Amino acid sequence: MSILIRNARVLQTAPHAVTILENQDILIRGNRIEAIQATGKVDASHFETVIDAGGQLAMPGLINTHSHVPMVMFRGLAEDVDLANWFNEMWALEANLTPEDVYWGMMLGIAEMIEAGVTAVADHYWYEDMAAKAVEEAGTRALLGWAMFGSDGPEAIEKTGAFVRDYNGAANGRITTIMAPHAPYTCDDDFLRAVSRKAEQIGARIHTHASETAQQTQDSLNTRGKTPIEVLRDTGVLEQSALLAHICGATESDLDILEQYETTIAHCPKTYLKLAMGLTPVPELRERGIAVGLGTDGAVSNNTLDIWESMRLMAMTQKERMGTPTVLPKHEVLYIATQESATVYGQPEQLGSLEVGKLADVILVDLTATHHQPLYDIPASLIYSARASDVQTVICDGAVLMRDRVLLTLNKADIIAHLREGMGRLSEKVPGARIQVYE
Amino acid sequence: MSILIRNARVLQTAPHAVTILENQDILIRGNRIEAIQATGKVDASHFETVIDAGGQLAMPGLINTHSHVPMVMFRGLAEDVDLANWFNEMWALEANLTPEDVYWGMMLGIAEMIEAGVTAVADHYWYEDMAAKAVEEAGTRALLGWAMFGSDGPEAIEKTGAFVRDYNGAANGRITTIMAPHAPYTCDDDFLRAVSRKAEQIGARIHTHASETAQQTQDSLNTRGKTPIEVLRDTGVLEQSALLAHICGATESDLDILEQYETTIAHCPKTYLKLAMGLTPVPELRERGIAVGLGTDGAVSNNTLDIWESMRLMAMTQKERMGTPTVLPKHEVLYIATQESATVYGQPEQLGSLEVGKLADVILVDLTATHHQPLYDIPASLIYSARASDVQTVICDGAVLMRDRVLLTLNKADIIAHLREGMGRLSEKVPGARIQVYE
Repeated sequence: MSILIRNARVLQTAPHAVTILENQDILIRGNRIEAIQATGKVDASHFETVIDAGGQLAMPGLINTHSHVPMVMFRGLAEDVDLANWFNEMWALEANLTPEDVYWGMMLGIAEMIEAGVTAVADHYWYEDMAAKAVEEAGTRALLGWAMFGSDGPEAIEKTGAFVRDYNGAANGRITTIMAPHAPYTCDDDFLRAVSRKAEQIGARIHTHASETAQQTQDSLNTRGKTPIEVLRDTGVLEQSALLAHICGATESDLDILEQYETTIAHCPKTYLKLAMGLTPVPELRERGIAVGLGTDGAVSNNTLDIWESMRLMAMTQKERMGTPTVLPKHEVLYIATQESATVYGQPEQLGSLEVGKLADVILVDLTATHHQPLYDIPASLIYSARASDVQTVICDGAVLMRDRVLLTLNKADIIAHLREGMGRLSEKVPGARIQVYE
Repeated sequence: MSILIRNARVLQTAPHAVTILENQDILIRGNRIEAIQATGKVDASHFETVIDAGGQLAMPGLINTHSHVPMVMFRGLAEDVDLANWFNEMWALEANLTPEDVYWGMMLGIAEMIEAGVTAVADHYWYEDMAAKAVEEAGTRALLGWAMFGSDGPEAIEKTGAFVRDYNGAANGRITTIMAPHAPYTCDDDFLRAVSRKAEQIGARIHTHASETAQQTQDSLNTRGKTPIEVLRDTGVLEQSALLAHICGATESDLDILEQYETTIAHCPKTYLKLAMGLTPVPELRERGIAVGLGTDGAVSNNTLDIWESMRLMAMTQKERMGTPTVLPKHEVLYIATQESATVYGQPEQLGSLEVGKLADVILVDLTATHHQPLYDIPASLIYSARASDVQTVICDGAVLMRDRVLLTLNKADIIAHLREGMGRLSEKVPGARIQVYE
């Protein structure tokens, strides 16, 4: 497999600068970037696929560092409700789930993400073997964690640990795996300790929710005498290069704790706004050297899987939160969206930038539409004007998944038809059936 | 002219409910809605244009209640700067403006708005005769106000007053006009009093910026001994059915003052976030019966003219601001985006809903895309999932302006080429040249 992308602008991000290279060719062999060089120096006939970018912007495939992708199947079923009701609504509906539902939900969510230029997702859900099947077929990348509650007991740790071992490196390495206890408020200390031991044994990271609101922190102090972050520290979770979602309720001393571990944070601002959860202290985390990545969370709170929107909301809400528009300038926002998200995802050496030798996850973004014109400032246009619909072409692991907005690996009509068939059954609340209770 | 829209879903908003009618035909004669009825009861051969909506959602054309549309020409030229620097950057660049620039900027901005389903805009800028020319040609609707600073002197009041008289009702009534002093901080009390007298004489409303930040309120108290809202009351502005933009810095007693007048508020949340200005007290205003409409502000702060994004940001930021997700439920959000925005715009009897006898400003929105599926909740999908690119067809004043995403009245390539030509000249800062200073 070989691809030549001709005449692209190339986005290069760094912690303190963002650069746009003009008139570049990107050479892809197998699943790697072979070269990035001035346009026209290579013979196109040496490539199986030639894509004329015509000035479109090439950038790394976007990474969604925290989602529950199959929840797209419940999109729109919990609106205008408070956080406790939101959880309890969802946990009632999730009692209806079958493995096949997870497969089709994952397929729909991946289709939506490819259309938005998202090539990798950290997914935290059930029946992740079915999610893996969808990822394998779609051609994208995923970091899969099979979710568990403390109430699922030690056998859940064994089962999801076996999943981690069996699926890590699957689909030509496109699938990686992670342990996925739900949260400190749904897992007791002993359970979290057992998860940490299992993760250490099998060399796995841990992906969990933590300190989602200030109220959760207060509740944890009241019931356990510790903040959720202290619980994660004391149960060994933080020692497993944890991927923590949200952290809107972290205290100052929680941040000091996180700084001492290889912890990374997934930031999903649309959920926080919609559910009035407060906001992650993004600049404070980054000042301490803690990597922050962009996420969407599930589509029942989001209601989409659009990383462009997460990027824009992060930049804007942090400016508002800190009371100054100079917070999170363009280069920092784009660095978070690319290389720093790759760090949170766990593959910073392989993903997150267009560089020779890295995995070939490349998207092409059209900047000629009305809402980008006249184009004075490409980084600003990417953050504040771009829409998912501006993404034209998506390459993952050296294969073209979407070209000129046509999906090449997925049958969208078929996927949507399957999801529609399940609507009645999946939206029904069976009395007494719920997988968990939020108190 | 006659149009038959067949087989649409129809959005009906009301203060306490939102309804979707299925399988409707919309009959348009001249520039009015003649009937909305069950599909198939009318002979299509009686209509010049027949549009098969195929289940797309029909809703009123969106209304942008506050913008500086031609500023699209400066898009991206003031990023990551604080509010004072933002104003001073812009006021330096605006010294370069020619009437022709305003025409082409208005053309680009209208093209962008049509593509996003926006059919009417309250524009506040200079050379509004050139803006009117663009509106006339594009076929949209606009409430035009020719901006002035106090430093422009009384002759500006005469000149812009003459514009208000001459252009009100132009373009078959698609153009209406309004007096447009810039703001209390750029107009002294005597100037504002003279504007109010002129507005009263000629029967015009007043469109101005007010109380944009808490700091402005404090500065006004320090220098004038009054809040900006008290200044507007005491100079007679509030007696002219004022359209006030922003109000992020209003005090509790300011709200009590506003309640006593026919004041309406334009809300532009993307600007507030990007420039860290604080947020309009939207629920508090509406509890007092004060109408709130959606706006984009100019594209240098926004950076687009996308009312879908304004709608979504309003809903989400107010939930966050009030600390509860039950604030601004779906039906209120959609009522603000439609009928309440029409009130702010000044034509509540003619615009803002799809009803027999109202002006035929109708857009068709495709809800079949991946990011809407499976479609459990259309109102939620409109607020939280829809993108400007989902708008397929736009009708204004009984004429089709965009069909299947193709603009019919504007030559986009020509407009963009003109704007690109001016980029060097318009982005140059001429030493000493600036139209105003923000202190």
